[in-house]
Amino acid sequence: MAGPDAALREKGSAFLPRFDDKGLLTAIAVDSRSREILMVAFMDQTALDKTRETGIAHFYSRSRGRLWMKGETSGHTLSVEEIRVDCDQDALVMLVTPAGPACHTGAVSCFYRKLEGDGLSPVA
Amino acid sequence: MAGPDAALREKGSAFLPRFDDKGLLTAIAVDSRSREILMVAFMDQTALDKTRETGIAHFYSRSRGRLWMKGETSGHTLSVEEIRVDCDQDALVMLVTPAGPACHTGAVSCFYRKLEGDGLSPVA
Repeated sequence: MAGPDAALREKGSAFLPRFDDKGLLTAIAVDSRSREILMVAFMDQTALDKTRETGIAHFYSRSRGRLWMKGETSGHTLSVEEIRVDCDQDALVMLVTPAGPACHTGAVSCFYRKLEGDGLSPVA
Repeated sequence: MAGPDAALREKGSAFLPRFDDKGLLTAIAVDSRSREILMVAFMDQTALDKTRETGIAHFYSRSRGRLWMKGETSGHTLSVEEIRVDCDQDALVMLVTPAGPACHTGAVSCFYRKLEGDGLSPVA
């Protein structure tokens, strides 16, 4: 990305979210207290609008092909306190307060394993 | 995602990275000391292999359509200390030591602005 659009996106104070060719951007949820990364997913324009309107994280589920409020089944919603945007505005970091484990497996964070050699082991 | 593959990916100790229909997964770089999120980008199989082989973060640049070693021009490489994987293995978190500002704008992190009302303001 280059030219006036890039400069505007990088240096300006206008929120100009940049969706990819599938209409999605990357959204990362971070616990506002522990600063642990809880999960990462995608948002389309509707999910972003819903998140901003309600203060509860919404995503676009690529596997289900629809809007998805995190916690709509489990009740483990993410309350959004702050939304940060990256230089080229194609990714967001949300500082959140989780209402329960963020991962559907019951783990606090989806990132509960690390690479060790060629396999995975639990994060301490 | 459901079925035996899902269970294997979620609960197992095998590293089975799940690339999307473009052959990419999401990779987040976090400063191992400050725990600040520095940047987010995409990796294909080659970028992942190179990262694991060299211990230096490599990505696939969607805009340039090629393998990209972060810092190849600026010298601001990311030295990878740990790689974490999420439940369904389509996203990675790398704990890194950055050799300089992670953002090409000169900012420590690409996430240097936050949403405030309808505009952006600097993160304190």
